[in-house]
Amino acid sequence: MNEKCIPIERLRSDTALANPYIFRISELYDLRGIDDVSQPHRLNFSALIYVSKGEGFHYIDHKRHIIRAGTLLTLGKNQVHSFAKERTVDGYVLPFNCTFLSCGKNDPYFDLMIMALGHLNWIDNIGDDIGSLFETMVKEFASTSEFKAEIIRNLLRSIMLKVVVPTFQSEFNPVNQTIGSNDFYRLKNHIETHFYDRPSASDIALALGKSVKQLDKLAKDNSGESVKELVDDRVLLETKRLLAFSQHSISEIATQLRFNEATNMTKFFKRHTDVSPKDFRQLCRMGLHQK
Amino acid sequence: MNEKCIPIERLRSDTALANPYIFRISELYDLRGIDDVSQPHRLNFSALIYVSKGEGFHYIDHKRHIIRAGTLLTLGKNQVHSFAKERTVDGYVLPFNCTFLSCGKNDPYFDLMIMALGHLNWIDNIGDDIGSLFETMVKEFASTSEFKAEIIRNLLRSIMLKVVVPTFQSEFNPVNQTIGSNDFYRLKNHIETHFYDRPSASDIALALGKSVKQLDKLAKDNSGESVKELVDDRVLLETKRLLAFSQHSISEIATQLRFNEATNMTKFFKRHTDVSPKDFRQLCRMGLHQK
Repeated sequence: MNEKCIPIERLRSDTALANPYIFRISELYDLRGIDDVSQPHRLNFSALIYVSKGEGFHYIDHKRHIIRAGTLLTLGKNQVHSFAKERTVDGYVLPFNCTFLSCGKNDPYFDLMIMALGHLNWIDNIGDDIGSLFETMVKEFASTSEFKAEIIRNLLRSIMLKVVVPTFQSEFNPVNQTIGSNDFYRLKNHIETHFYDRPSASDIALALGKSVKQLDKLAKDNSGESVKELVDDRVLLETKRLLAFSQHSISEIATQLRFNEATNMTKFFKRHTDVSPKDFRQLCRMGLHQK
Repeated sequence: MNEKCIPIERLRSDTALANPYIFRISELYDLRGIDDVSQPHRLNFSALIYVSKGEGFHYIDHKRHIIRAGTLLTLGKNQVHSFAKERTVDGYVLPFNCTFLSCGKNDPYFDLMIMALGHLNWIDNIGDDIGSLFETMVKEFASTSEFKAEIIRNLLRSIMLKVVVPTFQSEFNPVNQTIGSNDFYRLKNHIETHFYDRPSASDIALALGKSVKQLDKLAKDNSGESVKELVDDRVLLETKRLLAFSQHSISEIATQLRFNEATNMTKFFKRHTDVSPKDFRQLCRMGLHQK
């Protein structure tokens, strides 16, 4: 892998797709070393991080989160995160492939859970009930039951539906979000896979067999944004990630994201953030940029 | 309904099929009265009863169970049960339609869970973990979340797979029970629906599109018994229920169960139990028969 890129962490074995494992935070620091866990890295899977004691910081994409006993962090696939340089908290890290969450082909809650994981990121003070569900789930990892994976899935789904999805819904206020809005998930998924090509709304409509009008209504109903805005959001997020965490030059990043010229990227970036890519990178390096 | 029959209790509304409710044991005594809850009645649904305090008795089919804080009772569809005449315990009763347990069409755990419910009936001292999962589930009944039913389903499945199914497996020791042995479930289901006709193994083989040999192997592998023994078990169970809890005469019961003559039923009954139907009924009325 190009050393300028953001490091990627992958789930280590195929078994992990069906049988997730869990780490103590302290164990992860010990196993991988402070330098490794505190370097921003991209996940090719989802994760929950539950803090059971202490107080400290955690970094997800461009945001520094305060964490303490009772904080639950949610990480979606492709998010960039890092632990703090000093370990001042303990708790658990549960990495899992998102399909592990699903209870079958037509699971009506799957899309919402996946969306919530990648958007919410931080919940403070999850309460004793959820804490004790988490502890019950942690204990299950040590069991030898043939039903272990299914029990963990059911407990994980309970946690997702009791706290993660409702908090996501109340904070992000999806205008007309319906359970099982598979079409919106397909749209988001298409954007996630193709944003590097910066597709237009009509490119996407063609690929998904819908009219631009239908797609825009779908996007507005579920997120309050147009298809073009959703694509721009995703490109902007990637630009920020690459500026903050990769070693690529600004013009290399512009090429990577298919801008004809670096100045086009600069204009795009300033229009959305009010700072230049160069200043953004500088602020990140100084640890001053939080959003 | 014929007043001689065992009273049947039905789930009260269609909504209950998708959204179960929960009662406190004390509430049930108050709502329905001691005479009603202590009269043996047949359920057309499944139920869990969890005792959180006190000590007392509960009757399932022909057995008197000692119950106390930490006891979990499981009731399968068509089982006959009754509460004690004096309420000395409290806790919760969760009635549910068995399809509520399923997470979808191809749920590989469904058959095992259903079988465990109807066979196990009594687990003592379920432990703090399961107790706290039960309490979390009880609290969820008071929530207004749109995900309430799904959360309850996931918690209920966790309880079933953590304690009910493994206890069933270890106590009933199914010889070669495999997860998702749908064929055995189909066989049990066929017997449950047709035992009144006292079908032969070849009648059942024909109906299920299998050979008698295949069916017998399936039955032996899953239960250690032949198809004929499974049918006989079910007929015997029904005979006991009708003798113990209905007001039908012995010859009426024989007719109901398609014995040519009452003496045939008497022979059948004595062969399996070593007592006559008449003595069995008498022992039950005196509260002396426990099995």
